[in-house]
Amino acid sequence: MNDVYELLEKKGITLPNPPAKGGIYTPVQEFGDSFLYCSGCGPDIGSGTNIIGKLGKDLTVEDGQKAAYQCMLNLLANLHEKTGNLNNIKRFVKILAFVNSTDDFAMQPQVVNGGSQLLADLFGEEAGTPARSAIGTNSLPGGMACEIEALVELK
Amino acid sequence: MNDVYELLEKKGITLPNPPAKGGIYTPVQEFGDSFLYCSGCGPDIGSGTNIIGKLGKDLTVEDGQKAAYQCMLNLLANLHEKTGNLNNIKRFVKILAFVNSTDDFAMQPQVVNGGSQLLADLFGEEAGTPARSAIGTNSLPGGMACEIEALVELK
Amino acid sequence: MNDVYELLEKKGITLPNPPAKGGIYTPVQEFGDSFLYCSGCGPDIGSGTNIIGKLGKDLTVEDGQKAAYQCMLNLLANLHEKTGNLNNIKRFVKILAFVNSTDDFAMQPQVVNGGSQLLADLFGEEAGTPARSAIGTNSLPGGMACEIEALVELK
Repeated sequence: MNDVYELLEKKGITLPNPPAKGGIYTPVQEFGDSFLYCSGCGPDIGSGTNIIGKLGKDLTVEDGQKAAYQCMLNLLANLHEKTGNLNNIKRFVKILAFVNSTDDFAMQPQVVNGGSQLLADLFGEEAGTPARSAIGTNSLPGGMACEIEALVELK
Repeated sequence: MNDVYELLEKKGITLPNPPAKGGIYTPVQEFGDSFLYCSGCGPDIGSGTNIIGKLGKDLTVEDGQKAAYQCMLNLLANLHEKTGNLNNIKRFVKILAFVNSTDDFAMQPQVVNGGSQLLADLFGEEAGTPARSAIGTNSLPGGMACEIEALVELK
Repeated sequence: MNDVYELLEKKGITLPNPPAKGGIYTPVQEFGDSFLYCSGCGPDIGSGTNIIGKLGKDLTVEDGQKAAYQCMLNLLANLHEKTGNLNNIKRFVKILAFVNSTDDFAMQPQVVNGGSQLLADLFGEEAGTPARSAIGTNSLPGGMACEIEALVELK
């Protein structure tokens, strides 16, 4: 597997600071011998500002993909903070992604791909392509466009 | 435990082909020594055709149960493809089921039972009756009626 | 860690009976060497009566917090029934909380805090502050206000 930080640099991606917490929870919780559960991350773009709006009304699929990308980047920031080294990740096991949607918007998988592609690019097809569910919902915290949580296995 | 394939045959159920993938994910991801996480499966009835519609408007509870049944059958198809032998499953640990619902439809558990009953029939009450959450949502990929994901433990 | 039952008594909290089941599932399913998955619990307040209604329309944030508190209390009742001793819990790993919401209600984290605070009070900041996702939805079983599921690790 490639060095994740080299790949980030090559792609010109700067890992953001971990997003501000909005409640009583732990951003990344370890359990068992080698597992981490990552709390749902929104598309915080710094200073607590989120990409907000509903797909099917306020945002295009492309907007939504940017939101999903930002969720995933924030999730990686939390994982970096917790592990100290993203190269210690063996695989992403599962992600659960919620997309803020109107009743008739039905392209959640295309939206969530915006985050999934980043994982696959950084961790490779085997470690970076977890099981996934992409679900619509009528409302998310702060009106944000997308929220993604993850189950991760360490080496 | 009975042989799952004999039970399928006795019930006249043919395991479908694994449903077509609709995004960047792995249908069934192994982790730890003996765990599998299954991506959310919709009620694909072949050739990418789903049972679509919202409970409380387009579909009756019975229609929804058929959709949940089909989700579970597709999930088993993915598990068969991954494991090569469904008899290697020790237990279904947890399922998370989303039902495409109008704002006032509230019979998600009855709908999801359509899938849960199949699991219990095939794997028995202990191995085939996992923990479960049955949740309504206002939109699912492609407008499908139901989506079910699962955490599975192998022998 | 303090004795959970002493803390409950000190706080004047009586653990309720496990809520009635509303479908084909196991309230708490063990797996691996030391894990439990708890089915989604609603704010059942006894005799199958739930706190029902949507945040943003029928219920205030404070009402929602009481519902989340009741969900968590029911979840603890199920865990007590399964384990025989809540002091055997090493940590709450992850909770997933759904809040019955209008399309523009966006304070799910504040609502879910009503349940998260109880966990933190009883199990301490390390064991009782799991990873978390707080999600809005347009409909939940029986019209209940909130539903919470949990992944738990035993000592």
